[in-house]
Amino acid sequence: MAWINHGERELYSSPWVTLGLADVEWPDGTRFDHHLIRCQPAAGCIVIDPERGVLLLWRHRFITDTWGWEIPAGRVDEGESIVDAARRETLEETGWEPEGLTPLVDFYPSNGLSDQHFHVFVATGATHRGEPSDPNEADRVEWVSVEDLREALRRGEMNEGLSVTACCYALAFGAFGDLDA
Amino acid sequence: MAWINHGERELYSSPWVTLGLADVEWPDGTRFDHHLIRCQPAAGCIVIDPERGVLLLWRHRFITDTWGWEIPAGRVDEGESIVDAARRETLEETGWEPEGLTPLVDFYPSNGLSDQHFHVFVATGATHRGEPSDPNEADRVEWVSVEDLREALRRGEMNEGLSVTACCYALAFGAFGDLDA
Repeated sequence: MAWINHGERELYSSPWVTLGLADVEWPDGTRFDHHLIRCQPAAGCIVIDPERGVLLLWRHRFITDTWGWEIPAGRVDEGESIVDAARRETLEETGWEPEGLTPLVDFYPSNGLSDQHFHVFVATGATHRGEPSDPNEADRVEWVSVEDLREALRRGEMNEGLSVTACCYALAFGAFGDLDA
Repeated sequence: MAWINHGERELYSSPWVTLGLADVEWPDGTRFDHHLIRCQPAAGCIVIDPERGVLLLWRHRFITDTWGWEIPAGRVDEGESIVDAARRETLEETGWEPEGLTPLVDFYPSNGLSDQHFHVFVATGATHRGEPSDPNEADRVEWVSVEDLREALRRGEMNEGLSVTACCYALAFGAFGDLDA
């Protein structure tokens, strides 16, 4: 049986994140308050080039004070399609414009806490347009072999959820094709 | 270069989730406020039995109003080790007590927003102890073949982040051994 949401009240609201308290009923009838976060979806892109490999960026995440390899990704802006967000974020963060985007997987990173929705695309190539227009995201932008991508995952050097999930799904379902020897 | 966190103030605080506003400085010197969520870590367990398959539960998530297959998992309680949390949550949610837990992967589901940390273990078997002591989590508890697990992922019937990431990592790195023919 589903849990029933009898209604929510906002504890804090902003354009980026809303914290609410929901009046929830369990299948066994227990009634209680449950915190929840509501925020916008995000989209990311695994860019695969048969000659270069996989396009990754090395960056810092201040909330956990951790560094890691990530795929380009970011929040979907209002009025923008999800695939356009994936394309825009990739260009802004890496300076490479991806082409041939197809959906790979979408999921809820933590839907016991938030309604955040991640959407991952695969691109079959990219064209270099210049330096990243957003210089604050990536410390480094590199094309990485699938073998090195696997090693980064094993070592915990790729530890940001959207990237870990996207790349593991791609590895598990053969999205890298011959590049994953 | 790292983003600099010059300090945080709490907007809302509770035992389960804290919403804060951080005073952040970008590498290029831009200074701005950034929302963040602080909450406890969670742990989950991929239980693999050579005869039965993988232990999954089918459940509803009210925040996204979605159903899906998940691995047993839950929040780490205060004073409890992470592996004990994985073991306890598996027993409470499924009625099966896992054995032989080893770490598989840990990651931050959404560290552009929160400091939540997920820890995934693999168990090499389990003993049936009875009905789940927490009857509100799982609608169904089933042992599923790895082939059916792959199909659930393809169809989006496994869409909760900790489970998707855990299972894709396990598939990508051969954690299912011969069961993934």
